[in-house]
This record gives sequence, structure tokens and C-alpha cells, in this order.
Amino acid sequence: MILKNYVHGGDVYQNRVTLDFSANVNPYGTPEPVKAAIRAAAEEVDRYPDPYCTALRARLSALHGVSPDEILCGNGAAELIFSFVQAVRPKRVLLPVPSFAEYETALRCADATPAFYPLARENGFAVAEEILGAITKDTDALLLCSPNNPTGRSVDSALLLRILDRCRETGTWLFLDECFQDLCDADKAFSLVDRLTEGDRVLILRAFTKTYGMAGVRLGYAVSKNGDLLRSMSEAVQPWNVSTVAQKAGLAALDCPDWAQKARALFGTEKAYLLQALRALGISVLYGDANYLLLSGVPGLYEKLLARGILVRSCGNYRGLVPGDVRIAVRTHAENEALIAAITEVLHGQDRH
Amino acid sequence: MILKNYVHGGDVYQNRVTLDFSANVNPYGTPEPVKAAIRAAAEEVDRYPDPYCTALRARLSALHGVSPDEILCGNGAAELIFSFVQAVRPKRVLLPVPSFAEYETALRCADATPAFYPLARENGFAVAEEILGAITKDTDALLLCSPNNPTGRSVDSALLLRILDRCRETGTWLFLDECFQDLCDADKAFSLVDRLTEGDRVLILRAFTKTYGMAGVRLGYAVSKNGDLLRSMSEAVQPWNVSTVAQKAGLAALDCPDWAQKARALFGTEKAYLLQALRALGISVLYGDANYLLLSGVPGLYEKLLARGILVRSCGNYRGLVPGDVRIAVRTHAENEALIAAITEVLHGQDRH
Repeated sequence: MILKNYVHGGDVYQNRVTLDFSANVNPYGTPEPVKAAIRAAAEEVDRYPDPYCTALRARLSALHGVSPDEILCGNGAAELIFSFVQAVRPKRVLLPVPSFAEYETALRCADATPAFYPLARENGFAVAEEILGAITKDTDALLLCSPNNPTGRSVDSALLLRILDRCRETGTWLFLDECFQDLCDADKAFSLVDRLTEGDRVLILRAFTKTYGMAGVRLGYAVSKNGDLLRSMSEAVQPWNVSTVAQKAGLAALDCPDWAQKARALFGTEKAYLLQALRALGISVLYGDANYLLLSGVPGLYEKLLARGILVRSCGNYRGLVPGDVRIAVRTHAENEALIAAITEVLHGQDRH
Repeated sequence: MILKNYVHGGDVYQNRVTLDFSANVNPYGTPEPVKAAIRAAAEEVDRYPDPYCTALRARLSALHGVSPDEILCGNGAAELIFSFVQAVRPKRVLLPVPSFAEYETALRCADATPAFYPLARENGFAVAEEILGAITKDTDALLLCSPNNPTGRSVDSALLLRILDRCRETGTWLFLDECFQDLCDADKAFSLVDRLTEGDRVLILRAFTKTYGMAGVRLGYAVSKNGDLLRSMSEAVQPWNVSTVAQKAGLAALDCPDWAQKARALFGTEKAYLLQALRALGISVLYGDANYLLLSGVPGLYEKLLARGILVRSCGNYRGLVPGDVRIAVRTHAENEALIAAITEVLHGQDRH
């Protein structure tokens, strides 16, 4: 394999997997109206996609109470990380770790130097007030994710507002990844979309991928009141980056507002179940505000679960995490029970061949 | 509109269009097995796409007689233009014009300086032998398109081989866009894929978009025997740039080898029909080797056809072309007749309101 070696969850293609706990997508999958929109789109794919995503941006602008010109769609949220970095070309970037690996990949691709800001395990990987002191006039950009991936920790809302103020003081770009906000516990959900002001150096990242089970379609978007930024980002990619299939699927997804609500209701009971069951097995678990949990301290758990057809996300290659750290998605009760049963087997040493 | 103003054909979204001659796609549209694959993919889009496009690259490698590691797939061929430029970061780039506008956009995005090499209208915009002298040790890259877009001219095969040799002598990267090879007249079709040698600085660009009516799905690929190049290109984009829908659609398309053949047979008769009819109307037409023709010299043709619901590609904003230059796709006979009828009306001054 000469292509790069990817490190993410969700790779059900290289493995024999019957249960996938490695990808953080809505356990209810794709809403039927979204599937129907994809099927219908097959009849019009001989035409180029609308490069402006006109209909989709109109709907998103109404949803967020911003202008359509303050929305930019992408080929999944991941593409927008790369185009943000290409557009801004920040030199000194503050990057809390552990966090989503593509931030660092995108930064290195644009010759930016990440200054890693370690989040303390003993503090549950929370972003603490001390980060304010690390944001200086020399900080070109701060890349923040709330709830964070893979820890599941949200940034405290009061602190997030202080971070926003601090970035404005220092002229620092704030890139805030809110891709898991829709699947976040209600008491922790907090978006900066309502706090944007004209021209400021803030970009909010959002995704359909996780909320609507559209990882295989690719659709994300950015919200910003900085027109120069969005224009530069759109110029950093081809005009037709968002497929017709994704645009139609996205429109259909916006007609399913209950889909995230239904998932959040499930997570309420299932996170409690998983936490109790895992802790009863003596496993250290970090409570996650979104739809995944970070476990630690079981050597070989990834391999032993894979031998049972269960894929989890091995996190040993995340900066700031260690071998034995594993992220699991929260799924339906039957699936979660199957996971607990398999972990119980692993802990009792019932190796499979 | 704060987003950038795109200049391409195919924008049937901002206009009232009943006939689209502006996009260079197969007039037979999307093969039914490809549509079926898209519909079937709806059931699995809650999973992330295979970041390696393993199955698709295996099929493409067999098709072209290269190793799977010599294939890199992209979100349409257009994305691969950007990732090539990001990976190579050429400073001095030789760019024959007129040519596809995204080359220049991608180059400017990476701070490269295009040295424009004007193709002479009086020579039918053919690439001439003189280009060899313009390729020097100072030329970091040459971006070439054959058949060229929007002129439809192929590079003469003997000259193309000399250009390849010259690029090897001077250490110049050769980026050769073969996206219209599949729809090119048999006597002009000529690919460099068979001429690649281990490690050389050559990349061939190919697309499913035009051949299989998949513009709205987005799928292109690069062929190169330069492993470092393909790895760098894959690192310049997110891991999941090629959607599951595109991968499945691409596999289905490769089971339809007659689709391009059927279109080429149509072009044989329809290009002859259009040339004869347009020339009978006194319009200057350049013969195109692929599925489009470049007309010139009818002021206001674009607007007057649009008033009749027919979209063509106004080429006045192409570097090296002038207002009044218009590209038309070659479509089915009934559509072509409708176009000729509309142009006849326009020339006879029957304005519509």
C-alpha cells in the first residue's frame, strides 16, 4: 500500500466486522426520506451539481438564522477543515490534544506549525481556563472541537465565551468544530452560531454525517460571518465538491428534525447502561457528552474484540492518548449488550480463534 | 453572492433551461446499472466510505494494466487537479491556453505562477512543436489536456511522445488530463498510460463524470507510477473524499464498457451533421475530437439561445478566447436538430420575449 495509512474508525472494509462501534454515527442509521432522496437523485446525476448548493444553503440559513451567504457547504465536514487551513494559512496554531486527527494532517499539509495544548487526563481531558493564557497575539488560529473527539468532552459554555472574547482580542482565528452538537446531551449542548458578529474571525463547523447517518454520502458545512474567509475557502476547492446526491440527501435530512432527538433520547439511557456495565467490569470510562465513550486500561481490547467481529476505535495513535485507550460509539441497546458480553468474555480470558 | 462566481458550463440551476448543451457529458446520460448501484448504495451510506477505494482501484488497475497502487481516486477529476498542485507545489508552470479554467484556479491557490502558452486560433488551437522549446529546466510542471477543453483538439500523438521525452529531460512534471479520451474519435484517441515508467514525474487524469453521466456523483482518478506523488496527493485531502455512492457507481460503470462506444458512434454522425448545418448557416466551427464543438463569431448567441431555454457554454471568459466564442456539446440527433433550429431563428433575428 503506497497510499497513506489512515488511522480512523469506521474501516469496516479491511476487517471482518459484524458490529461497528468504531464510527460515531447515529445508531438509527439513515432516515428513510434521506435514502429515498438518494435513490431519486440517481435520475439526475448526469448533470453537474449546483456549485452554489443554493437550495441547501437557503434551508441551512433559515435553520441557523443567518444569511445564505454565511453558509458554505463541503464534501463532508472534513473537507472544510482542509479548505479553512488553505484559506487562512495560519503559521502558529494552538491545537488542544487529544483531538480529531485530521486537524493536524490539514495543518501540516499547509506548512503550519501546531502548538499542542495538552488536555489533562486527570481532569477528564476538559479544556481548562488556563487555555486563555495560551492564546496570544502570536496565535494565528485555535482549532477547538466541542464536544471533543475522541474524548466526548464539551467545552464549558462560559469558558467558551471567554475563549471567543480572547480570540477577538488577540486577532486569533477560532475554528470551532460543532459536528457532534446535534448528538450532544441537552444540558451540555451549546453553539457559538448565535454569537457570530459581522466579519469576525470565527468559523463554526457542522456535519450531516453523524446526525443523519450520511457518512457515505459526505456533507458538512461551515457557518461564518466572515465573507472573505468563505470566499477564500470556496476558491481553495473545485466548484463541484458537493455532489448532487449529497445536496438532495441534505435537503431531505432537514425534513427529519426528530432524527437527532430520537438518538439523544436513546443515548440518555444507553450511556447510563454502558457506564454502569463497564464500571462494574472494573473498566475506566470517561463520560462523554455526545454519542461515544472513551475507555482505558484494557490491554489488547481492540484486537480481542476484533477477533469477535466487533470493531472499536483504537486510540493509541492519538496524540495525548496511550495504547489501551479505546473509543466506543453508543449504539442500540441490543448492540450495546452484545458489546458488554464480548468485553466480559475478553476480561475472563475466553480467547477465540 | 459572497461566494466565488463560477464560470463553467452545466449551471442549469440559475437558469431556466430545457436543453443543456453547456456540459460535456455523455448524451445518453447515466447507464441503468449505475443508477441501480446508486439506489442500492442508499442502504449503506450510514457507514464511512472505504478511504482506500480498494475495490474500485483493483478494477481500474486491471483496466489499465497497472498496479492498484498506481491509481488514486478523487471526488471528481477536478479535485485531483487541486491535490496534484498541492502535492507538487510547482512554482513555474507552463499552461497552454485556452484550456480548462480550474487549472489556473488550482495553481493560484497554491501560489504557483502560470506561464501561459498561447495556442493559435489560426492553427485551430493545436499544440504545435514549438512547445518543446518552451519546456526548460526552469519549468516545474506542464499542464496539458488532450483532447483539450474547450477546443476539442487532441495533441498529436507523435508530438505528445516528444513532449513526454522533453519533460523527462528537463525534470518537468507532466500533468496530462485525459478526461475526454473515452469520448474521443478512435483515430485521435491516444493515451500515455502505457508509456509510464517507474517513478517518473507524470500523472494522467481520468474521469467517470463525462463518459458515464456521473457529473452529479463525482468520480475521477489519477494514474501514475510515481508513488511519492500519489501519497502526497492523498495526504492533501481528507481520507473519505470519495463517497460510497461514487465508489459503487464507479464499479457499476466499469461493467458498462459499451457505454462510451455507443456515444462515440453517435458523435461520428452527429458531429458531421452539426458541422454541416452550422457551416451552412455561415457559422465558424472548429472540429472537435471529443463530444463538443467550439463555435465563434455570432454576437449574443449565448443570451439569445438562453432566451429559448437552451444553455450553451459562453467561452468569452476563457483566457485566449473572445466574446462570441461558444462551446456546444454534441447530443442526440433530436436535441441537435432543436439547437440548429434555435440558432437559425437567432440568425434570422426572430427575438423572443
